[in-house]
Amino acid sequence: MQNSVTVIAPVNIAVIKYWGKRNESLILPINDSLSVTLSTADLCSKTTISADPSYESNQIILNGKEENFENERILRCFEMIKQRALEAESCPKELLDCKIHVDSENNFPTAAGLASSASGYACLVYGMAQLYSLKKQEISDIARMGSGSACRSIYGGFVQWQKGVELDGNDSMAVQIAPASHWPDLNVLILVVNDSKKKVGSTSGMARSVVTSELIKYRVEKCVPQRIHSITQAIKDRDFPKFAELTMRDSNQFHAICLDTFPPCVYMNDVSHAIVSYIHEFNKNEGETKVAYTFDAGPNACLYLPEKYVKRVLSFINHVFPNDNQESVEYIRGTPVELENEENDFSQYIPYAKNSLKYIIHTKVGDGPSIVE
Amino acid sequence: MQNSVTVIAPVNIAVIKYWGKRNESLILPINDSLSVTLSTADLCSKTTISADPSYESNQIILNGKEENFENERILRCFEMIKQRALEAESCPKELLDCKIHVDSENNFPTAAGLASSASGYACLVYGMAQLYSLKKQEISDIARMGSGSACRSIYGGFVQWQKGVELDGNDSMAVQIAPASHWPDLNVLILVVNDSKKKVGSTSGMARSVVTSELIKYRVEKCVPQRIHSITQAIKDRDFPKFAELTMRDSNQFHAICLDTFPPCVYMNDVSHAIVSYIHEFNKNEGETKVAYTFDAGPNACLYLPEKYVKRVLSFINHVFPNDNQESVEYIRGTPVELENEENDFSQYIPYAKNSLKYIIHTKVGDGPSIVE
Repeated sequence: MQNSVTVIAPVNIAVIKYWGKRNESLILPINDSLSVTLSTADLCSKTTISADPSYESNQIILNGKEENFENERILRCFEMIKQRALEAESCPKELLDCKIHVDSENNFPTAAGLASSASGYACLVYGMAQLYSLKKQEISDIARMGSGSACRSIYGGFVQWQKGVELDGNDSMAVQIAPASHWPDLNVLILVVNDSKKKVGSTSGMARSVVTSELIKYRVEKCVPQRIHSITQAIKDRDFPKFAELTMRDSNQFHAICLDTFPPCVYMNDVSHAIVSYIHEFNKNEGETKVAYTFDAGPNACLYLPEKYVKRVLSFINHVFPNDNQESVEYIRGTPVELENEENDFSQYIPYAKNSLKYIIHTKVGDGPSIVE
Repeated sequence: MQNSVTVIAPVNIAVIKYWGKRNESLILPINDSLSVTLSTADLCSKTTISADPSYESNQIILNGKEENFENERILRCFEMIKQRALEAESCPKELLDCKIHVDSENNFPTAAGLASSASGYACLVYGMAQLYSLKKQEISDIARMGSGSACRSIYGGFVQWQKGVELDGNDSMAVQIAPASHWPDLNVLILVVNDSKKKVGSTSGMARSVVTSELIKYRVEKCVPQRIHSITQAIKDRDFPKFAELTMRDSNQFHAICLDTFPPCVYMNDVSHAIVSYIHEFNKNEGETKVAYTFDAGPNACLYLPEKYVKRVLSFINHVFPNDNQESVEYIRGTPVELENEENDFSQYIPYAKNSLKYIIHTKVGDGPSIVE
């Protein structure tokens, strides 16, 4: 009887955004979404779960701090996984009767503004599934009950969260469109923006949008289904310009919906909008779409770009967003990248205020959760 | 034969926004819009037009600088007014044959970011109509040919620009919903924001929105007609809370459409969004809607509010947007307003960065163009 397992799970960044629930408690979305799973080599949650007859209570430690296991979402994931293991008879009944201890941490700061709940719940649910030897079963629906977008972190590569139509949400789950190996060329730069503004949390923000935005109806009914279809094709064709345009358009539309919410939710700031503006200018002047931006419910940009453009785009970003720490390993994190030594002609672009970015993470598309030996 | 006239015309600020043309050259909009005309006592364009047989060419001076009269829009307004005078036989044929000299200036700086083209073209067209003794005829359609929103500055009070349905645009004109005297209590504070960012002009911005925004279709077909109907009723009822909510929602939706445009048009900045956030917080804490915001294609806020709240709102704005010049007459312009002396309890609101506002203009709803004796 295995009674301890350590797993890691990835972060994912949506290119067609999830915004709005049709059922709050079951976490059922009003539209499909589609994301890229990022490499666990650079960003991941890591969770150790152990079960032992000697444990007197369930415990959970998040980033070194004990949290309340009796949290509704954690309990629900735990009970659902145990139920599924019971039905599948995948492990001894005695193991299911044990209390568990969970120790989870992220290898990236919460301050990065990345959705740690997605990788965190994916890691928890995947870890519990391993503990109970649930190998083949679908578990993305359980991860969804922890945090909506966590269901997409159960798979690597390119992942669609199908909203489903059933009232109980049994058909609302993640599906892999293509593995990371299908398009390993896709690189990612996360520009972490210096920002102190308090913001509307995404849970309450999307609830407010569903109730107050008039435009969200049109987005959900007309725009998203077409975009899911088109971007799936772009991914299958490894058509970067098409993938990039759809990604940028959907990021913009998501933030448009936030602004159409009453009172409005504002997640992007002046620096975010400057990034958008520079990237459009850059792509236009380069004569082709070399890089795409997308913004979640925060000011940080996630840039998608083919590997061959990483050096040039990073040199460009360093030109327009100068930083005192530009040369340090603390500033450009993740997968190392050599900056261009050749002469760059970026003088036509007027730089933005110094130190507007906190740091940059370089990573790429990656695989789903895995066991750490 | 009168051969000289001096007129003034007002600025107007839309509460249901004009954004998008169905015909670029005829300046026909894709949706109705509705605005409040501001008092010429504080903001206006002033134009002197003279006609004389001795003039050898048409001339136009704008804010002290000679401009090209052969500008397509100016010429079109001039020819249309003369044509209408000819048909109406409103003045001697010899007067119509004379060249004219136009001298126009705004009593507010262009830097204020206020749409000077609306008051400017309204003034030009109204002035020419006076010169040729066209007293009763509709001229808002001619002002529209100069600059779309200029048609609304032909009337005082509350003005609807009906988009019309005819291909030649003959039914696209302004209509007064109610005169200023119907709701003289409506005051206005214009918060001029310190900003240096170059922006997409509204003409090219709206053209891009029509072509690239998917959400604009829904706005035009579903949202605007309902809003025009509701806000007209709110104006008739002098129902400030309803007027305020519709105004704020439509400002937000207009900027949402701008963001859904590709590449996006961004007119509001961090200060603009801070104004929005503070006003929602203020209204909520005051227990009633005391003030509404609206933003045109720029970062400046136009606040509508009942007269009795001007002091308190201005005190609030001065608290959250502290300025080194707060006490000077240069900072709070327009109709004088005494600040509250009583104790204000605004300590719960954390002020924004100092000097984020350039200055404030206090004015109110006002009448249409008039002759200066």
